Amino acid sequence: MEAGGPRADAGSVGAVPPSVVAAIAAVEPPDPAWSDRAADRQARLTMPPGSLGRLLQVGRQLAAVQRTDRPFGRPALVAVFAADHGVAAAGLSAYPQEVTGQMVANYLRGGAAVNVLARRVGAEVRVADLGVARTAAFAGGTGRIASHPVGPGTRNFLEGPAMTRAEAFRAFQVGLDLGARWAGGGEFRVIALGEMGIGNSTTAAALIAALTGATADAVVGRGTGVDDRTLAAKRDAVAAAVARHEAGAVDVWDRISRLGGFEVLGLAGLAVAAARRRSLVVLDGLISTTAGLIAARLCPAVAGSLLAAHLSPEPGHRVALDAIGLQPLLDLGLRLGEGAGAALALPIIASAADVLRDMATFDDAGVSGPVAS
Amino acid sequence: MEAGGPRADAGSVGAVPPSVVAAIAAVEPPDPAWSDRAADRQARLTMPPGSLGRLLQVGRQLAAVQRTDRPFGRPALVAVFAADHGVAAAGLSAYPQEVTGQMVANYLRGGAAVNVLARRVGAEVRVADLGVARTAAFAGGTGRIASHPVGPGTRNFLEGPAMTRAEAFRAFQVGLDLGARWAGGGEFRVIALGEMGIGNSTTAAALIAALTGATADAVVGRGTGVDDRTLAAKRDAVAAAVARHEAGAVDVWDRISRLGGFEVLGLAGLAVAAARRRSLVVLDGLISTTAGLIAARLCPAVAGSLLAAHLSPEPGHRVALDAIGLQPLLDLGLRLGEGAGAALALPIIASAADVLRDMATFDDAGVSGPVAS
Repeated sequence: MEAGGPRADAGSVGAVPPSVVAAIAAVEPPDPAWSDRAADRQARLTMPPGSLGRLLQVGRQLAAVQRTDRPFGRPALVAVFAADHGVAAAGLSAYPQEVTGQMVANYLRGGAAVNVLARRVGAEVRVADLGVARTAAFAGGTGRIASHPVGPGTRNFLEGPAMTRAEAFRAFQVGLDLGARWAGGGEFRVIALGEMGIGNSTTAAALIAALTGATADAVVGRGTGVDDRTLAAKRDAVAAAVARHEAGAVDVWDRISRLGGFEVLGLAGLAVAAARRRSLVVLDGLISTTAGLIAARLCPAVAGSLLAAHLSPEPGHRVALDAIGLQPLLDLGLRLGEGAGAALALPIIASAADVLRDMATFDDAGVSGPVAS
Repeated sequence: MEAGGPRADAGSVGAVPPSVVAAIAAVEPPDPAWSDRAADRQARLTMPPGSLGRLLQVGRQLAAVQRTDRPFGRPALVAVFAADHGVAAAGLSAYPQEVTGQMVANYLRGGAAVNVLARRVGAEVRVADLGVARTAAFAGGTGRIASHPVGPGTRNFLEGPAMTRAEAFRAFQVGLDLGARWAGGGEFRVIALGEMGIGNSTTAAALIAALTGATADAVVGRGTGVDDRTLAAKRDAVAAAVARHEAGAVDVWDRISRLGGFEVLGLAGLAVAAARRRSLVVLDGLISTTAGLIAARLCPAVAGSLLAAHLSPEPGHRVALDAIGLQPLLDLGLRLGEGAGAALALPIIASAADVLRDMATFDDAGVSGPVAS
């Protein structure tokens, strides 16, 4: 089908903007020499070798990302990007579209799960509007929001491309710009990707299917909690949309823009910008990990700076994690999004850094080593 | 064999002291009515129903333990009980016995993993000496220690009973007394059980086998990291000791005292005292969970106040958790002990309480509910 020539709904094939090309080219992968140095230090700390398990692996990743064997796991940010999705009109979501803007208002007032969880762990929450359809609930509110709407939500990808190629570049650039601000100068050493957008589990499932070749059945789940009938309709819709758009896609940007998600594209840009500035990027659930997958496809050097906070019961989440090559830290049955699961993982990440910086060595503490065997 | 009459190494069958009987009788199980009220509240919070997974279950447990639908997950304590084990003389451990006292000194100076992890999550660490053989490393040190040695370590259970029945009651009473102090008046709402004692993974494996009927092969692991040859010898030793002592055991106290562990018995007493005072008791790894298993066997009402922080790769850990009926929160490959894994779980527990206390409801936040389906 790829050779079938242009179709009525084909995206334009405009060149990738120089700023996007440059941002992607500037990312360097984490340095394994620092991971090795961190491993040497871990072996001298007062504990049996390897006895802190995954915590040691996270410590070595932080060391490689930050180029030091005394890394920091703080300060940490949970960035919540919000946008609406045209596919919400298809009735495949448990909640109405107005909830996107209402929840943004809730984040700005500090009453949502991500606020409560981030406060507990001393992380900051910053919210960005990448294209919320109904802004009345939060417009003029007291909380700060980074307002960079690419449009009033995407179009319905069941009927045509969700966004133009130019819109995809704009959404990605918003993330690049915010990431340069938030990770620049080391303001945040750890940046977690959170999101809100009614319909975005449908968008994410379609993107994962398109990018990995997985079937719709393997990636579509209940999202915020649809019933069996709606789940079946969601699977059919995703299968049909992916088949249609894949048939017309000319490159990865076209593939992504057809299925869309302003907040998803924005978070992918944020991941690239954060990795470039040696911040660890923490993925949350299905949608956040889809952004991580897009970032890793556009910029393979990003992958080593990604950490998967948790495993969602949404089936597509495991598919996306496997495609990037990530093992989640937590498995607590969370399926909320917002960055909630990422927030829960932040103290574990900070602890991994603390161990390298603050634990005594066997020599320091006068503790005997193993007996000769 | 139980009808075979007294044996040369049989423990005495002295009556359980009235203070121990009273402490056990005073524990009330968590109140499910408060769990139900917490569930009602969770259903009104601004998130799709059930979308915070295990966090909601932990919140309901805290509600039932504390008899409120606005529970607290703080302040939290990691109690590290240390003691030596006669079985260490059998050469089944990777480290020499002097390390017990050296690590106690490390805890008191704040340089061990548990200190670093507890600091990160704002938990206090308190250390108790239940019977460390070599105290020179920490005697006269600056850090505070609760000094209640039952003896200079237990005897080698491969040769005879690890402790007398009277010593078992004394060790348990130390935990009861410290628990009354630390959980009394709500000083600590969450108490994690940590431990140190070279040889205690052998002790714990034997206790789990004796209390659950599991085979030595199913419960013996590498502890702090023994080689294949020592692992085989450890399995054989545990199998032989359990068979020998089970043959002579007259009741559960006799069974426990023969295999011993002053710090293990002390932590079991601490769990009973904490549960009585409506504190959540957080289990760490193999040894800590053995203490939880003993507490639950002596006092079934305790079980509902126990929470398993994580799963250790030590094979006996899963056996002990299953015997109590607990599912671990984390699975990070930790096999350190000290309370390290429990410390990592504390912010998740605190977050579960925060969600019930601090999240906005749909009504408060003006967020729309699900669409009619």
